[in-house]
Amino acid sequence: MAKAEHSVLGTSIARQGGVERVTGAGIYGIDLDLPNAVRGGILRSQHAHAKIVSIDTSQAKALPGVYAVVTAADAPDVKYGRTTIDRYMLAKNKVRYMGDPVAAVAAESQAVVKQALKKIKVVYEPLPVVLDPEETMKASAPTLHEEVPLPANLPKDANVKNVCSYTGVHAGDPEKAMAEADVVVEEVYETKMIHPQYLEPRIAAARQEPDGRITLWANAQAPFGVRTDVARLLKVPLNKVRVLSTELGGGFGGKASGITSGAAIEPICALLAVKARRPVMIVLDKAEETISTTIRSGAKMYIKTGVKKDGTIVARTGKVVYDAGAYSGFGAMAGARCTQMLGGWYLTPNVHIDGYVVYTNKQVCGPVRGPGGPQAAFAVESHMDSIAAKLGIDPVEFRLKNVPKSGDRIVGVPKLRDISLGETVRIAAEKIGWGKTKLGKNQGIGIATGSWIESSGPGGGAMVKVNEDGSATVHIGKIDMGTAPRFGIPMIVAEELGIPVNDVMVVNVDTDASPWDAGTVGSRSIIVSGTATRLAAIDARNQIFKLAASQLEASPDDLEIKDKQIRVKGTPAKSVPLATVATAAHNVIGEVVGHGYCDSKLMAAEEKAHGNSPPFTAHACIVEVDPDTGNVKILKYVAVHDVGFVIHPVAVEGQVEGAAAMSIGQALCEQVVFDTNGRTMNPSFVDYLMPTINMMPRIETTLVHGYPGAGPYGAKGAGEIGCVPPMAAIANAICNATGVRIRTLPLSPENVLRALRAAKR
Amino acid sequence: MAKAEHSVLGTSIARQGGVERVTGAGIYGIDLDLPNAVRGGILRSQHAHAKIVSIDTSQAKALPGVYAVVTAADAPDVKYGRTTIDRYMLAKNKVRYMGDPVAAVAAESQAVVKQALKKIKVVYEPLPVVLDPEETMKASAPTLHEEVPLPANLPKDANVKNVCSYTGVHAGDPEKAMAEADVVVEEVYETKMIHPQYLEPRIAAARQEPDGRITLWANAQAPFGVRTDVARLLKVPLNKVRVLSTELGGGFGGKASGITSGAAIEPICALLAVKARRPVMIVLDKAEETISTTIRSGAKMYIKTGVKKDGTIVARTGKVVYDAGAYSGFGAMAGARCTQMLGGWYLTPNVHIDGYVVYTNKQVCGPVRGPGGPQAAFAVESHMDSIAAKLGIDPVEFRLKNVPKSGDRIVGVPKLRDISLGETVRIAAEKIGWGKTKLGKNQGIGIATGSWIESSGPGGGAMVKVNEDGSATVHIGKIDMGTAPRFGIPMIVAEELGIPVNDVMVVNVDTDASPWDAGTVGSRSIIVSGTATRLAAIDARNQIFKLAASQLEASPDDLEIKDKQIRVKGTPAKSVPLATVATAAHNVIGEVVGHGYCDSKLMAAEEKAHGNSPPFTAHACIVEVDPDTGNVKILKYVAVHDVGFVIHPVAVEGQVEGAAAMSIGQALCEQVVFDTNGRTMNPSFVDYLMPTINMMPRIETTLVHGYPGAGPYGAKGAGEIGCVPPMAAIANAICNATGVRIRTLPLSPENVLRALRAAKR
Repeated sequence: MAKAEHSVLGTSIARQGGVERVTGAGIYGIDLDLPNAVRGGILRSQHAHAKIVSIDTSQAKALPGVYAVVTAADAPDVKYGRTTIDRYMLAKNKVRYMGDPVAAVAAESQAVVKQALKKIKVVYEPLPVVLDPEETMKASAPTLHEEVPLPANLPKDANVKNVCSYTGVHAGDPEKAMAEADVVVEEVYETKMIHPQYLEPRIAAARQEPDGRITLWANAQAPFGVRTDVARLLKVPLNKVRVLSTELGGGFGGKASGITSGAAIEPICALLAVKARRPVMIVLDKAEETISTTIRSGAKMYIKTGVKKDGTIVARTGKVVYDAGAYSGFGAMAGARCTQMLGGWYLTPNVHIDGYVVYTNKQVCGPVRGPGGPQAAFAVESHMDSIAAKLGIDPVEFRLKNVPKSGDRIVGVPKLRDISLGETVRIAAEKIGWGKTKLGKNQGIGIATGSWIESSGPGGGAMVKVNEDGSATVHIGKIDMGTAPRFGIPMIVAEELGIPVNDVMVVNVDTDASPWDAGTVGSRSIIVSGTATRLAAIDARNQIFKLAASQLEASPDDLEIKDKQIRVKGTPAKSVPLATVATAAHNVIGEVVGHGYCDSKLMAAEEKAHGNSPPFTAHACIVEVDPDTGNVKILKYVAVHDVGFVIHPVAVEGQVEGAAAMSIGQALCEQVVFDTNGRTMNPSFVDYLMPTINMMPRIETTLVHGYPGAGPYGAKGAGEIGCVPPMAAIANAICNATGVRIRTLPLSPENVLRALRAAKR
Repeated sequence: MAKAEHSVLGTSIARQGGVERVTGAGIYGIDLDLPNAVRGGILRSQHAHAKIVSIDTSQAKALPGVYAVVTAADAPDVKYGRTTIDRYMLAKNKVRYMGDPVAAVAAESQAVVKQALKKIKVVYEPLPVVLDPEETMKASAPTLHEEVPLPANLPKDANVKNVCSYTGVHAGDPEKAMAEADVVVEEVYETKMIHPQYLEPRIAAARQEPDGRITLWANAQAPFGVRTDVARLLKVPLNKVRVLSTELGGGFGGKASGITSGAAIEPICALLAVKARRPVMIVLDKAEETISTTIRSGAKMYIKTGVKKDGTIVARTGKVVYDAGAYSGFGAMAGARCTQMLGGWYLTPNVHIDGYVVYTNKQVCGPVRGPGGPQAAFAVESHMDSIAAKLGIDPVEFRLKNVPKSGDRIVGVPKLRDISLGETVRIAAEKIGWGKTKLGKNQGIGIATGSWIESSGPGGGAMVKVNEDGSATVHIGKIDMGTAPRFGIPMIVAEELGIPVNDVMVVNVDTDASPWDAGTVGSRSIIVSGTATRLAAIDARNQIFKLAASQLEASPDDLEIKDKQIRVKGTPAKSVPLATVATAAHNVIGEVVGHGYCDSKLMAAEEKAHGNSPPFTAHACIVEVDPDTGNVKILKYVAVHDVGFVIHPVAVEGQVEGAAAMSIGQALCEQVVFDTNGRTMNPSFVDYLMPTINMMPRIETTLVHGYPGAGPYGAKGAGEIGCVPPMAAIANAICNATGVRIRTLPLSPENVLRALRAAKR
């Protein structure tokens, strides 16, 4: 569709850097080989909750081959945290989950590191452990953070403890509307903790340079966030810390530690490097990775909806209890988002939802792909089917009935502009054969929708350097994790500069040189870096036209650029090569370098004025449930997405498939299981079941056009929204097949069979 | 003097990076330790001129531990050169000096590299060798470059060969003026080739990355020039080559290979890395360094001046024969500058000088500190004393008589603005005690002046990133070779942003990220990067004021910034920390990053309109000549310099002292000596005499104020001009002591004694 207007955009060019990835040639963090580097390791708490009485590192320090042993006493007395400042780099006085870092060692080999860690003697005084997010709110629960006050915005009547943050969502008069509703449906849903399970382990390597600066390599999604953490925790200025991003073998939000105060191995690594006076590299092993890093939290969601007989939703009330784990981490943001989304994305005039984010003695909440969204959508969209069933209305019709229209307000979006929700539902219904497909025995059909945040959050910049030969070197602050940097970004530069995509090189993030960026999170690569890159490329083009104008004896406004030639529009014979103009820049401004930034304040103002056009999606599937084993087999799966203008169709499809697969995993099998002491029972892939290829359906993706978003050319983010609908779509199909509504994840054979048996009784 | 107006500028803060340098902690090229790297070495011609009949690399390739052996046949068929494209990366068909690279090897160790180099069998057919720059112009001389045509601008009657470039300097009617002069003095001067003799050897290391890009580390003064050479010679786009600058242990122009097509080990290193599929590092040893890299050329200068009885100069004619060596290298530029400067920097209305830059079978001319200038000044300023003697006028008076005034034209400068020449002469005369100091036996006093080019040449950029804590990270394209990057640049940022100098970090050049730059040459660091940095810092400050204005409820125009606080002028209580504003930028434009560039076209236009204010200098000294040995001892040495606004006094003094020391060395002892076959006789420090501390006088530097230049705040470049006057100042003092005018360098004991004896005969 885009081909008429654009030359590169809308096509599915080969991903830059793809060959290296599939041939194993790419340099990942673990491939780093710093001269004279030693290994680092972290001693983690073996108690989920305990006082630290004493730490004796003398034996560990005495071990031959040990370069440094550090505890909280060796670091500046500085805490960190994204919303609540509640955490030390290394635990001080208390540990709060089984995995809390207590001490760290740098030694000549991994073997010596392990020996030294064993020789650190920590005396603990165990404290009562609380793992359940509702139990932790009770007066009887142990207090996790003595020094953290309750949130100032807590409802006055809330008699709670261990609450880390609170979100209240209010609209209209839900009490009155609920009383006037024809039908009220009330349910409770629950999702469990899952781990993002990227295959590449988390690494960090740090070196103190001769001038005292600290260089840090990390497979981090938020290199600037890591820089902030390291600078703050080591008490050095930001320009004395340099973070270089390595290739990333999967992150899914789990490696965004700089913005989550999550795993935070980087500051520990930097401290070790300073103390050891040697470069230090830390590589987490699988078990340590699983128990200690940031995760997708479990949520308990109370949801109640009032509807009119005709299917019009009139009120929604509810409560979210969102498990932040031992520290606030990303909990406040993810919990708030879950709370908002429990209000749904349909026209719902009256809403009241309380969202409590709570501390428990478990590992810490991170911004895993679509943080808070899939949990909320599991409740909302399962609940939609429950209401439709109670009303006796077809689930598709019921959804279409409540689709908002332009100018409407939904929870979290004050004013909507273009709404693709209805179209995605209609297409998904058509693609899955809703009401037409003949279902076999034990088969069921289900649908669920979703939406996602758009265009809020920090701005960011881009720099497009046009080299003397007309090739371009591009700097953005987003890392390459399979998103825009190697797909959309080079395409945008190629499009605006009239050069081949292969003449565009997007370099890896180096916090010294790259534009500041909040992190490669929140589906924001194309919104932030794409917008900035487009403006930077246009800036560069304008400079080129200005330089070329005198050579071509034409006005800059009359010029165009194509195939690396600058031409006078309508006079194709009058042209000059881009390389000539770029080289001539030397004797004027030095070089052609374009700058651009995504102004998030401006973007917000525009949306306030004209309304917001968030992405919507509808997924539908057909499943077969084995009544003897409870096994659920997905027979067909369709995903319909509006991502606004599609810059690279295959990349978007890849994002949709990946995101859907992640939530299909959470729907069918994944969860982190704890024993009563707070110990993770399944830290390896042997025990933590991920969906295998046998469980995965082919995901048939359809992209909907015509609903431009806030990104460049009308693009919207596409990385996370695919995670939102799958769990409810599958649960709805199971319910359709069996007549049993399962409200707690995962929909594993064990749980499904248990539900089927319970229903029979 | 600057302290009232400025807070940082004009003070002598500690040099950034100085401690690491003096403690040996700095990471120089030789300290690089790339994983899996192998060593590289170059086979150099043992003939000064020969045909290459054949090269057999089979035995070398068969040697265990050898990873690659390359010759011209392994590289793309591409030549290079700065003005004349006359050179291959590895010699093809012919070699033209003893040191010309013929083949190269990558092997597991330096020992295996050496063995392999010996096993490369090259069959040569020797050709006649020409070493003398005047001989090479004769019809009887062998032709060095069959494929290079004579310069198009050669005078029609010039019956010459092996001329690489020609410069003609013309003004007025010198023939007529010379005929009307009262006195005409005609002399011939000659200087010999010297090597820049930086202590750190030249290194290059190259690695091909998994995506095919080539990363190159080099102690190069012109990283972007190296990038251009590597990309062109390996036929890859510029954005597929990345050059990282290492610390530099002295360069003096000798390491500016990217802009000179001089030593050019970098493309060879890159080719080896590609072929060996391993990182390759080349380190030149002292002898190879001396015989193969670029040098300061010898020049033969014919000079003739007509003067009136009162001392007014009326005409200057002359001829320069400038030795480019085997390839054009930097010869055209250095030779042209020498030719121009032979016209002097006094008021001289009628001028005709022919400058021939010629090929000989010697190593290649590079841009050594003040290229062409010291040679010309030796002739011009010795000649001035010869004229004064003939007229019977005091040399100081004679010079002052011919000082130009505002609006005047001198050779190379169409219109002068502020002229410090007279003041520097007067101060130098006063400081040395001219006409007052009582000279002892065999003692003499001498003075010489100088000038240098200013503000011509390419532009360049700067980027000032203001981090969230108010610290700044700065990118410029100039490397740190003891010039502006670690002195003036951080001071300018500190001054304009109101932050401490230690909060400013100037990062090393990375061609991916740094602004393009022509190279750290031509006394242009403060002019180009200083101007760009000042504008970038002001741009950043403007952004900060714009962001702060709403917080402070004030107009951006009413704000000031000091001590990391933004304040409302006149209302000091209304303030906000810089860190707060810089952090708040996240939610608007991402970050505060200022951009600036030095627009050389604009600068040239301004100078055309208002005139140019070049730097001037006068050096004076007292020497004692031992009549029995010819040894010259400098008893007192004063250097008076106008460098415009002085940003860092001690740094400028350091530049003056270093530059003067270099030319004192050339005056008293240094030269590269060749045998008749073109073999360098003194490739080591054992045979190549550098001035020792015993030979060096204390250099008493005085800086003259009040003559603003084209740089930031009125600064002028200060790195090279100190090289210009010393040789003539010393020769004039010797003449004053002995009555003997020596017109050929060096003024070594041997040469002085020979001249004294010849004068006696």
